[in-house]
Amino acid sequence: MDTHALPSIEAVDPPTVQDIEAAAGRIDGQAVVTPLLENALINRRLGGRLLIKAEVLQKTGSFKFRGALNNVAQIPEERRANGVLAYSSGNHAQGVAAAAFLAGIPATILMPKDAPAIKRRNTEAWGAEVVLYDRWTESREEIGARLAADSGATLIKPYDHPYTIAGQGTVGLEIAAQCAALGAAPDAVVSCCGGGGLVSGIALALETRLPGVPVYAAEPADFDDTARSLAEGERVRNDPGAQSICDAILTPTPGELTWPVNQRLLAGSLTVTDDEVLAAMALAFDAYKIVVEPGGAVALAAALSGKVSMAEKTVVVVASGGNVDPAMFQRALATVTAATTV
Amino acid sequence: MDTHALPSIEAVDPPTVQDIEAAAGRIDGQAVVTPLLENALINRRLGGRLLIKAEVLQKTGSFKFRGALNNVAQIPEERRANGVLAYSSGNHAQGVAAAAFLAGIPATILMPKDAPAIKRRNTEAWGAEVVLYDRWTESREEIGARLAADSGATLIKPYDHPYTIAGQGTVGLEIAAQCAALGAAPDAVVSCCGGGGLVSGIALALETRLPGVPVYAAEPADFDDTARSLAEGERVRNDPGAQSICDAILTPTPGELTWPVNQRLLAGSLTVTDDEVLAAMALAFDAYKIVVEPGGAVALAAALSGKVSMAEKTVVVVASGGNVDPAMFQRALATVTAATTV
Repeated sequence: MDTHALPSIEAVDPPTVQDIEAAAGRIDGQAVVTPLLENALINRRLGGRLLIKAEVLQKTGSFKFRGALNNVAQIPEERRANGVLAYSSGNHAQGVAAAAFLAGIPATILMPKDAPAIKRRNTEAWGAEVVLYDRWTESREEIGARLAADSGATLIKPYDHPYTIAGQGTVGLEIAAQCAALGAAPDAVVSCCGGGGLVSGIALALETRLPGVPVYAAEPADFDDTARSLAEGERVRNDPGAQSICDAILTPTPGELTWPVNQRLLAGSLTVTDDEVLAAMALAFDAYKIVVEPGGAVALAAALSGKVSMAEKTVVVVASGGNVDPAMFQRALATVTAATTV
Repeated sequence: MDTHALPSIEAVDPPTVQDIEAAAGRIDGQAVVTPLLENALINRRLGGRLLIKAEVLQKTGSFKFRGALNNVAQIPEERRANGVLAYSSGNHAQGVAAAAFLAGIPATILMPKDAPAIKRRNTEAWGAEVVLYDRWTESREEIGARLAADSGATLIKPYDHPYTIAGQGTVGLEIAAQCAALGAAPDAVVSCCGGGGLVSGIALALETRLPGVPVYAAEPADFDDTARSLAEGERVRNDPGAQSICDAILTPTPGELTWPVNQRLLAGSLTVTDDEVLAAMALAFDAYKIVVEPGGAVALAAALSGKVSMAEKTVVVVASGGNVDPAMFQRALATVTAATTV
């Protein structure tokens, strides 16, 4: 079966922990084993131990490079020259563009017109051809299917593909190994959730590596489709008119493949406001010295705003990406005094 | 001899590489082994390989924690209860305050009134007593000597002490080990230089670990005392009226202990303007996703502005600290478009 085309999603199984381990082997030496960051003063303020998995330090500035590498590595030899195609608000775009560049194959990326400039610029810098579409009036899936049919390029899905989920799941393997090395036993792990590729991959990895440890999604307040889907027991959609600063994780509904995994494995989904996200970005600047984009800060925001209990707990949050334009970062910095008074 | 008091600096030898190795053993498990960061797009633009030793991710947000730990660990048992004393524009302050806190001993820190708010706030958050002085009219050395005489506290010098230099030199040991792990053979290593503790420690470590690799200091344009001292063959002073945004490294003249080391081992000192520093901070934000303060960005600025040759070279620069107030960071972000056009 050509799993890259995914003609029938129902026929595709999510990855196993063995698939995630295989992905870890494929990306070894190309992806960064990102550090867990910690700040004793913040821990004291929270009354617990907060560990930040700093995927902002991943190549291309987000975890998406992992899934992209795991996909590109598995494209059949006879199809490689046709290149790859991806649609993305920007982080998957850069991940795929970089993975294709490293593999020496062409990449075409569909990006929304309103994607942050930094994401478009870096995608083009990796040599990819960028095709723009309107996030609100055009279907990226339809445009992508047409382009793929024309070129024979392999579509690399941003979340709804077992190779993608397995690649992102390597974050979970690293969290488990790094916590063990620190002698830290996490009471909870929190990851952002758009389509759900990252959090489902982490949950699948930790089901085996940290069994019994609750894994939470974190979502923007008006893009809480996973939270509401978990409550209702079926996939629901976000209001098409909803807005958020968290551009990286604005998806309409849980993925077809990621949803059953998340329904089975997640302990819940924590929602945060844009103001809580900006305060989290400011604290990451002030205390951890890392640059986190809005969508990458939702898990940290959930921990800082008390959505997950920190008192006498050890909690791992994923800072999933750092591709943010200066203007948005300045909005976060404007909150820094209030956010960081110890 | 009570080396903490340093009654006669001429009698004190700089540390050996064995002293630096011993320091590495003392700080092991307490200090962070900070990563070497890399960005393929920036490398392509520079035509070489730039590796950033990210000491901004060190505990307390700068390398100063290393030297502080190495000092505190060697205070004789009978003097520990008297606590420690330090004078510092802020990074050494936080390093000493944190090291004292971890050792369970009191700390008094002399800070200039114009130190960045973040540095004073975090020093106090570590439980230290902060005493303010005027950087331009009062002598921190005199005030410090008086306070130490009163309390019996051990003075922890910011750079002119072999324990401090040895602690900072552990950065050099890590650079050598991490380059070897990457298969990277550096053509040059560049570190910021105020009093010269960090760059002298790195040079001493690399004299053995990477023999023949040139080590450069980097300094603000109007605080180029090391550059001019190297040119003139003796210690010279900066203009007392000189100003710079690089608050962390504004010292009047090379250290008594660090100067002979730097004179013997440095390949030179590269000077950068405040505008070049701001552009380097912006690039660190944009490409490496780290927060670097002005004084911490001078080595990166030297590499980006062509002060050290990058063409077909591998160059390691130390990003030595990240404790910067939002207003200053916003000044850097304002340059981001010009700085990062690939």
